[in-house]
Amino acid sequence: MSNNGPVQWIWPFIFLLLLLLAAINNSAAQQLKWQEVAPGIYKATVGVPDKIDLRSAAGAEANMHGLQDIGEEPFPLVKMDITAKVVDHQTYLHFPLDKKEQLFGFGLNFKTVNQRGRIMQLHVDNYAGADDGHTHAPTPFYVSSNGYGVFVNVARYIKIYAGTAVEKDSKHPPVIYDRNLDKKWSPRPYSDGVDMLVPASGGVIYVIAGPTTLDVVRRFNLFNGGGPIPPRWGLGFTQRVQRLYNADQVAKEAADFESKGYPLDFIGLEPGWQSKSYPCTLQWDSTRFAHPAAFAESMLKKGVRLNLWTNPYISPESPIYKAIKPFTGTHTVWNGVVPDLTMKAARDIFFGYLKQHQVAIGVSGFKFDEVDGGDQYLWPDVATFPSGTSGEQMRQIYGLLIQRYSTEMFHQLNRRTYGLVRASNGGGVRFPYVIYNDYYDHRDFITALINSGFAGVLWTPEVRASKTAEEWLRRFQSNIFSPLAMINAWSSGTKPWTFPEVADQIKQLAELRMRMMPYWYASFALYHFKGIPPFRAMNLEPGFSSTLKLEKTAQNLEENPYEEAKAKEIKDQYLAGPNLLVAPIFTGQTSRKVILPKGNWYDFYTGAYVGNGEIIQVTPGLDKIPVYVRDGGIIPMMPAMLHAPGGDQKVDLEIRYYGTKPGSFQLYDDDGLSYDYEKGAYSWRTITVVKNAKGILEGKISAPVSGKPNTLGKITWKWMTAQQ
Amino acid sequence: MSNNGPVQWIWPFIFLLLLLLAAINNSAAQQLKWQEVAPGIYKATVGVPDKIDLRSAAGAEANMHGLQDIGEEPFPLVKMDITAKVVDHQTYLHFPLDKKEQLFGFGLNFKTVNQRGRIMQLHVDNYAGADDGHTHAPTPFYVSSNGYGVFVNVARYIKIYAGTAVEKDSKHPPVIYDRNLDKKWSPRPYSDGVDMLVPASGGVIYVIAGPTTLDVVRRFNLFNGGGPIPPRWGLGFTQRVQRLYNADQVAKEAADFESKGYPLDFIGLEPGWQSKSYPCTLQWDSTRFAHPAAFAESMLKKGVRLNLWTNPYISPESPIYKAIKPFTGTHTVWNGVVPDLTMKAARDIFFGYLKQHQVAIGVSGFKFDEVDGGDQYLWPDVATFPSGTSGEQMRQIYGLLIQRYSTEMFHQLNRRTYGLVRASNGGGVRFPYVIYNDYYDHRDFITALINSGFAGVLWTPEVRASKTAEEWLRRFQSNIFSPLAMINAWSSGTKPWTFPEVADQIKQLAELRMRMMPYWYASFALYHFKGIPPFRAMNLEPGFSSTLKLEKTAQNLEENPYEEAKAKEIKDQYLAGPNLLVAPIFTGQTSRKVILPKGNWYDFYTGAYVGNGEIIQVTPGLDKIPVYVRDGGIIPMMPAMLHAPGGDQKVDLEIRYYGTKPGSFQLYDDDGLSYDYEKGAYSWRTITVVKNAKGILEGKISAPVSGKPNTLGKITWKWMTAQQ
Repeated sequence: MSNNGPVQWIWPFIFLLLLLLAAINNSAAQQLKWQEVAPGIYKATVGVPDKIDLRSAAGAEANMHGLQDIGEEPFPLVKMDITAKVVDHQTYLHFPLDKKEQLFGFGLNFKTVNQRGRIMQLHVDNYAGADDGHTHAPTPFYVSSNGYGVFVNVARYIKIYAGTAVEKDSKHPPVIYDRNLDKKWSPRPYSDGVDMLVPASGGVIYVIAGPTTLDVVRRFNLFNGGGPIPPRWGLGFTQRVQRLYNADQVAKEAADFESKGYPLDFIGLEPGWQSKSYPCTLQWDSTRFAHPAAFAESMLKKGVRLNLWTNPYISPESPIYKAIKPFTGTHTVWNGVVPDLTMKAARDIFFGYLKQHQVAIGVSGFKFDEVDGGDQYLWPDVATFPSGTSGEQMRQIYGLLIQRYSTEMFHQLNRRTYGLVRASNGGGVRFPYVIYNDYYDHRDFITALINSGFAGVLWTPEVRASKTAEEWLRRFQSNIFSPLAMINAWSSGTKPWTFPEVADQIKQLAELRMRMMPYWYASFALYHFKGIPPFRAMNLEPGFSSTLKLEKTAQNLEENPYEEAKAKEIKDQYLAGPNLLVAPIFTGQTSRKVILPKGNWYDFYTGAYVGNGEIIQVTPGLDKIPVYVRDGGIIPMMPAMLHAPGGDQKVDLEIRYYGTKPGSFQLYDDDGLSYDYEKGAYSWRTITVVKNAKGILEGKISAPVSGKPNTLGKITWKWMTAQQ
Repeated sequence: MSNNGPVQWIWPFIFLLLLLLAAINNSAAQQLKWQEVAPGIYKATVGVPDKIDLRSAAGAEANMHGLQDIGEEPFPLVKMDITAKVVDHQTYLHFPLDKKEQLFGFGLNFKTVNQRGRIMQLHVDNYAGADDGHTHAPTPFYVSSNGYGVFVNVARYIKIYAGTAVEKDSKHPPVIYDRNLDKKWSPRPYSDGVDMLVPASGGVIYVIAGPTTLDVVRRFNLFNGGGPIPPRWGLGFTQRVQRLYNADQVAKEAADFESKGYPLDFIGLEPGWQSKSYPCTLQWDSTRFAHPAAFAESMLKKGVRLNLWTNPYISPESPIYKAIKPFTGTHTVWNGVVPDLTMKAARDIFFGYLKQHQVAIGVSGFKFDEVDGGDQYLWPDVATFPSGTSGEQMRQIYGLLIQRYSTEMFHQLNRRTYGLVRASNGGGVRFPYVIYNDYYDHRDFITALINSGFAGVLWTPEVRASKTAEEWLRRFQSNIFSPLAMINAWSSGTKPWTFPEVADQIKQLAELRMRMMPYWYASFALYHFKGIPPFRAMNLEPGFSSTLKLEKTAQNLEENPYEEAKAKEIKDQYLAGPNLLVAPIFTGQTSRKVILPKGNWYDFYTGAYVGNGEIIQVTPGLDKIPVYVRDGGIIPMMPAMLHAPGGDQKVDLEIRYYGTKPGSFQLYDDDGLSYDYEKGAYSWRTITVVKNAKGILEGKISAPVSGKPNTLGKITWKWMTAQQ
């Protein structure tokens, strides 16, 4: 040991250096150094960041080509207005806020779109009914209506004050009223800042330029790799069967879909496919699924893929338990050990088993459940993991890790996957996973769909059970205008035809989902290459203006002691793909208001003109969900197939055109199954509608690109609006 | 500057030493050193505690005499089973938990008494409907049914896992069931520990011995100074008038009480007494109160004291604004600056003004509002204070500080006060303040009253408004069996006689409150000298056994996906003073179950035997709240006066006796107004009932103590149960 002597003297000095660095970081508000790391994306480091953060957990890499396409943009704020300091191992961040500025984002919220005035603790969790930051994807990213964004790349429970904190020495102090007598008094004085408290000794923050709100979102998405392109079958229809179904019952379910003529691309198996669950063995149950490989193969032959539910909490009876135990956290979840997925050893065992026993026999994807919360089930914050990751950090990144490495597993086989997950976070944009939960409010599901576009995630307003045929139909209608058209019958055992009185309408809707696949597929390609969320808020549409109206929640001081007012905001209509506006109808409604952005808008079903920059009242009847197309909008469609096409299968295309203005559409094509598109095996074909010499609109489509995938069969045009 | 040279070399070494100390604290689970600091109270220090903690903020000092009276008791747990470590500036604590152990406490909860299985973040806040740790007094103290307690003396947002976290290598692992098929599966496996995450680099913890649960609570209370003895008038009746009442209206209100014959001891003025509010000027409004001193004096002559509402957020228009501004936090609350009450300079200005302009003219106390939350109003966690106290720490202690120093202000004048406050915390036991809030659920108010006895605080189930006469009466009934009998009409303007159909019953109840004053006063003396909470849970009664029953909340997996069961617990009956059991009736009920502890129990109104260690069903009618007296119970009462007696005023005593067993009662006496009792100017007189030679019960009272206060007039006996 004595030979270590000569260098031991250096350690106190290294400690000292670290201490001095820490002391420096504990100084007063720090002048931030901003570095442009990609076009329009500016990075600053505060204090000493954690070893692990959201982007590193997600393995996020910027799509620089896509970002360059949006272009350079100067730093969008006054740098001096952004301050940061580290005090007592906590990082204090302050960003400026104009009087009329609106804020969007801060993760997958369910009840609110406008986040100004909210206080949140961003915490991966099961959504429990309040937009307080506890949600499945509490992405620390916000977008300002002034056309910039802020992303805090820290895997901690960040406390957010989104325009509520008022500094004593503010340069923009609020007006003071006397509550005793002045009617203008309000319980929420104007705040000129967004404040954050990051419970860590530092972190990396990004300011993202616009100039438009959509540009901000696009830059954020592309900086995190751009959205996923699901396999085509992922955009078809999926049914999750009752949790204890056996192989015969599953086969029968698929056969019923086929014989009744309902589309079906994949079936989800719930916990019963495993020999034991909660905790999970990850092993096929030999009584319910005696021959998994043969079963998977026979299903695939019928055009139906399998998706397997699991959570990552490993039972002592699992074949991988002994091997993985050393690489798991200090605490169990439902008696299962929790793999430390930041460690390669844990990943090799966990995904290695899934790969060998499920993926290899044809399973198309997974539903990774319960990686979000709630606290009463998951590992506590006092848990620690062998990699040194804390319980809190692991909570913030577990959804990212399981998406990342399961995607990688499929990527190694050059097979795309499209699955379900219950937690994600900033950095996870590129993963082919859709978030779902146990909550079941149809209106709030739509608000979540709107907010998913700000959070860099996909969200499904899944249909589970319904009290009435009307509810069943209304839920189904918005479900098919979402990233994942799914019935989740794990508990209820419902099927599309469960309510006979609306079974025909359900079938038509499922068929519409299939017919629109070219449109959806192109919308996801835009998400991937250009960062445009396929489902997003009206506030990302340039011609949409929303002024927030405040309404007192109750006049009675007994019920409303602080005279709180509530914002009336648009949270029940959204944009779907480049050209559609969807305005769901909820159970009990027969009529609703739709706010149309500027520009002419047309009825999706009839092509009729409906309005321009105005509020319209619509009464679509029970069978229809109101959907509108922008002027010049092109919607490519295909025949209503029972299963999605794939590989080089040719499919006919019907090109629908709406309105009176020239328009164009970028039709994306590839094999729909593999990652060959990453090596260039894809094509864009441009559909354009222009006025000819006689002033009549004419459509054309660019020629197939030589050597690139081309799955287009016969092409027909449908002029939805009378040609002028 | 060069003359500093010779000593500068020392700083790096001091830094180094601190660093090494920090490194030691970051080591693995620490062996705790327990020191007995008072009989049955054991202290350990983990890591490096914060400069400020709950006890230091409260200025808590142990009543060693009272503690010695309970006696020594060995360390109640296996020391090795308690572990602590500091990792990354967070303190991890683990305490053992038996299979059948029940846990109580963790602050002023409103919906639950049994806290085992709960996860909380202890955070001073406005109660918002969930027992998640956000409450007015989130005292970090719990009591085990095994007869010991734990108190974590840290002013931080402590995360609590009260028997939910399951360690992978637990010595007491839960049994594992298969959720797929085994009915015995439960979503909450057995956990053998209480875990806490303290977001600080250390802290002081106390383990408190019993042997009974009541002993634990008593030790906790006495360790923090024991409970307050309110002035006698504090235990009378109080009315808070509509917020903009002027002096004439207040005088008229008092006159109406007098003329109608309703007791009244003090009137509360709401924000309108100030010239401006939210933010507050602290200044009398000259239009509504032109001559405050004369007004206060005239009210006092009528036997009615004044209590003044305020919050501590100072308006720029307040006379103290300029002086106090340098000693306020970085952020405002409702545009008012927030005094840093840890600083003497701030206190001198704030309380100095109150003392001179309000207390000096006779104001008897304050209602300190909004020192709790919610987040949307209070200073944010990113606020800092000139003393160096963080926003989080200040949030945890502000209620303590304002109680402590306002009490001190009155103490300096040798006048007792009894006021209202909306936040407290561990360490604040001795303050003469009662907590209230804006929540208004009658049942939950009773549960809070039960829990107040575990939290070291007082709570009033105040009456504000009611939809019906029945509700008005039912709320009033439990209100008079609480620490503060009060109508809060700040918004509604209600009066005791607002519902004419029950005005007589209300008057009788208010008179009952006055008649019971000797009993209440003695109960508070027990709180002060012996640490026994005047209002407390059945679980603190030796003869009470409650086995928790679990019931599934919903069988349907759609509504209850994790098959959660809910505990059925006793949270609607409580103990009041040494001898009473109160079982409120809620609106809509005509009949209810009452669980009687072991021993004979008697009807408070009739003296009739009602049962022993059993569940009885009672139907008391609209006029009565069920109240029961233990066997041998003595209840001293006085005539129904309109105002509480005070000073050396003699008052007749009626001694009621219930049951068949010998009994005794310690009757406390002092001047009821001053702090002279601290200098020994008080007396205990022992009332005893024993069987004489003929086997007949006979009562006697010890003679007055020479030289001590004696306010007893004529003494009569009332034998409520037939003498056997």
